[in-house]
Amino acid sequence: MKKIAIIGGGAAGLSAAIYALRSGAEVTLFEQFGLGGLVATIDKIENYPSYTSVEGWQLAADMAAQAKSLGLKTIRQRVLALRKKDNLFEIVTDKGTFDFPSVVVATGTSHNKLGIEGDFVGHGVSYCATCDGAFFRGKPVAVVGGGRTAVSEAAYLADVCGQVYVVTSQSELAAEQRAVDALLSRSNVTVLYGASVSEILGEGEVSAIKLYGAPMQQLDVSAVFVATGAVPVTDFIRMDVDNVRGYLAVDGRCETSVKGLFAAGDVTSGSLKQIVTACADGAKAGSFAAAYSATVK
Amino acid sequence: MKKIAIIGGGAAGLSAAIYALRSGAEVTLFEQFGLGGLVATIDKIENYPSYTSVEGWQLAADMAAQAKSLGLKTIRQRVLALRKKDNLFEIVTDKGTFDFPSVVVATGTSHNKLGIEGDFVGHGVSYCATCDGAFFRGKPVAVVGGGRTAVSEAAYLADVCGQVYVVTSQSELAAEQRAVDALLSRSNVTVLYGASVSEILGEGEVSAIKLYGAPMQQLDVSAVFVATGAVPVTDFIRMDVDNVRGYLAVDGRCETSVKGLFAAGDVTSGSLKQIVTACADGAKAGSFAAAYSATVK
Repeated sequence: MKKIAIIGGGAAGLSAAIYALRSGAEVTLFEQFGLGGLVATIDKIENYPSYTSVEGWQLAADMAAQAKSLGLKTIRQRVLALRKKDNLFEIVTDKGTFDFPSVVVATGTSHNKLGIEGDFVGHGVSYCATCDGAFFRGKPVAVVGGGRTAVSEAAYLADVCGQVYVVTSQSELAAEQRAVDALLSRSNVTVLYGASVSEILGEGEVSAIKLYGAPMQQLDVSAVFVATGAVPVTDFIRMDVDNVRGYLAVDGRCETSVKGLFAAGDVTSGSLKQIVTACADGAKAGSFAAAYSATVK
Repeated sequence: MKKIAIIGGGAAGLSAAIYALRSGAEVTLFEQFGLGGLVATIDKIENYPSYTSVEGWQLAADMAAQAKSLGLKTIRQRVLALRKKDNLFEIVTDKGTFDFPSVVVATGTSHNKLGIEGDFVGHGVSYCATCDGAFFRGKPVAVVGGGRTAVSEAAYLADVCGQVYVVTSQSELAAEQRAVDALLSRSNVTVLYGASVSEILGEGEVSAIKLYGAPMQQLDVSAVFVATGAVPVTDFIRMDVDNVRGYLAVDGRCETSVKGLFAAGDVTSGSLKQIVTACADGAKAGSFAAAYSATVK
């Protein structure tokens, strides 16, 4: 009997579900929030093969609908622990305990914090431009970070807000050249290289940030979008699993160093983190986890 | 200056083009036939994440349109040879010679045919159980072949379809004993040794096969899965490239053993061959080939 659990309902988890279900497995997906993960929060996607342009919520909804049409069973509970017990994996949630012969971890990453956000989170400090940009329509905002996420967040905000300041401690933006060029061509975008935020100021709501390494010491902004990267969500795993700087190491079949435990998407140590690579990981993890589960006595 | 060539215009090649173009590279794609490759020939696709069901030609056309909207340049010539010349790769076609600092090989495989498929391809005759098995849920099907692929295809189908007949001209199945034993233990699998298919019958869709060398002369089946092997299309490569039974070996970035030479999709030794895994390979190969090309003097 093929039977697997998937932890995480983003692109990787949904693709794993689609492949496992089609191979005849019974699939239980654990996701505490809605299905779609990070994809659902992205404004516009132009690099998922076959869509010249698609909104994130739409792509996420289509993947979820596809998995549901195949019989996906979802448990909306938070997974607190995953451990091995004899031949089975035990999943402990805030509401119960479940056993599965094989498990796919597709929990993605969680945003890094600046550490100086204080009580401003939700009052001007945000980790998602698509989610919160519209609250600061026409107003000056800052994006903190210099990578792919910072560039795409800034590009989004440049359409919605007023002046957009990108604050990065690096000497250049580390993203697709096309995306960087597009951002730098915007008249309302200013990049402050080699700069950092030392303090967030305001009475209840953000009104300014203090800087060092920048030409000015203080900037009046209504919001600070933190885009300094992410860490893999693996704190619930109570097993010794090989990893690369915290990201789960997987082989060409997306199996981890623990037999029967598979991983897919942003939580893995894969070379390129994209929606399509997360989906491909999911296809492998879902297929091989389902096949593995049938061999467990 | 980023500049790459891609050989092959299927899902892997088009995805490589999309990613390389978005990263600012100049991309030349060599394809002697139309764009879309194998995908364009598939009747109905239900496992590409986000499409509950889509026709192959449509998915292929959408991928091609996306690549073209980004500036893809296509050369409709047959590639006869690919070789290394100093720091560059030389591509020789039937009409000319071209130099590129980096190349992505995405030429796929060619299936061995039975020769008697006629017009039933896509109407009951398939070359991929993972792709099409679910269309014959609960129905009797035949697998033709006796090697590793036939055994894994039959095992997959045994979970999804009804009775599964494996038709092989050999006296035993040539695969891992463990896989053979697992298959033979299935109650709905029958292997017909020393048997061959002489004719495929049906009105529009497959309904039966004629046999010789088997106890019965005819078998009612809804589908015939041809699993007599496929060969990677690599005969034009005039270099020593590491391979696994002819399939190009690649690392986690889809680079081959030859620096600057990348490969993606069915032509590689990857673990699962699907449209979405080909696209993910392409995303990696296109991205890293473009980055590599910028370093070549």
